[in-house]
Amino acid sequence: MKDNEKRPGEIALPFDPATTADDGSVVFIGKIRSPWKIRAECPKNMVQARERGRTATIEIDDAWRTGLNGLQKFSHAIVLYWMQEARRDLIVQKPRNKPEPMGVFALRSPVRPNPIALATVRILDVDQTAGRITIDAIDCLDCTPLLDIKPWFETVDGVAAQHTS
Amino acid sequence: MKDNEKRPGEIALPFDPATTADDGSVVFIGKIRSPWKIRAECPKNMVQARERGRTATIEIDDAWRTGLNGLQKFSHAIVLYWMQEARRDLIVQKPRNKPEPMGVFALRSPVRPNPIALATVRILDVDQTAGRITIDAIDCLDCTPLLDIKPWFETVDGVAAQHTS
Repeated sequence: MKDNEKRPGEIALPFDPATTADDGSVVFIGKIRSPWKIRAECPKNMVQARERGRTATIEIDDAWRTGLNGLQKFSHAIVLYWMQEARRDLIVQKPRNKPEPMGVFALRSPVRPNPIALATVRILDVDQTAGRITIDAIDCLDCTPLLDIKPWFETVDGVAAQHTS
Repeated sequence: MKDNEKRPGEIALPFDPATTADDGSVVFIGKIRSPWKIRAECPKNMVQARERGRTATIEIDDAWRTGLNGLQKFSHAIVLYWMQEARRDLIVQKPRNKPEPMGVFALRSPVRPNPIALATVRILDVDQTAGRITIDAIDCLDCTPLLDIKPWFETVDGVAAQHTS
């Protein structure tokens, strides 16, 4: 499918956030080095990525490396990255594996108004000097721009622990 | 503490991402209506927010509301929001409740190069026509700009289920 095509049932916005968005600006702080060089190879989600059994590396640019201090104490992190190749104007989408079109906010598609993806990953190693974090798996293309890394906390992020009313 | 002050041990970048960031642009798709009108009232994290027992509402602007179609099927969502009042240049920070300064990527502080916060919330109600989602709790100020809503999946986002090597 070409990038400007729509599948039956899909709805595009009458404007394109890729060209109109200007409420805030992000800075790329590094990039994700993954085993996936082209879209056809890329896992569709983190479940598939973990099943492949391939680790990945997060490279932090020099300016930001002191910000890694302390991260090695955590077992898991939440990684935010910028899906720079994804269009941003499809508000209703028809994934191949779903019977009906669905709203973008009910999907984890990289195609969304703000193309910010997130993955919860296991931290295998942190080399602060080299600005390198080794993680268990990732579902994005090699050289995807990095936005943020956050420590994962069971008490904050774990649904089973906190949402048991 | 004033916004341009530093605590002992804190390190600021030699540049300010608030003024230099230009790798990508975000659009605000709505806002979070929370019970917290000033910083002094605001819970420090989602654990505290849930303990307060106050629900919150996410308001989606008109243009994006069809994107909510299907979200009501999910028990939980991941919400991304823009901490517009937070400075972006403190790469090492000394939180009040920690004995030592720590890197920003080992903290959930709103002060970070890209001021994107995330919370995993329980969905109580979705009114697609009104563009309103009621959630169990939130830890940000009233009227914080909204970036994204993603459905939460146990298989993708649940650490206990997936990271059990």
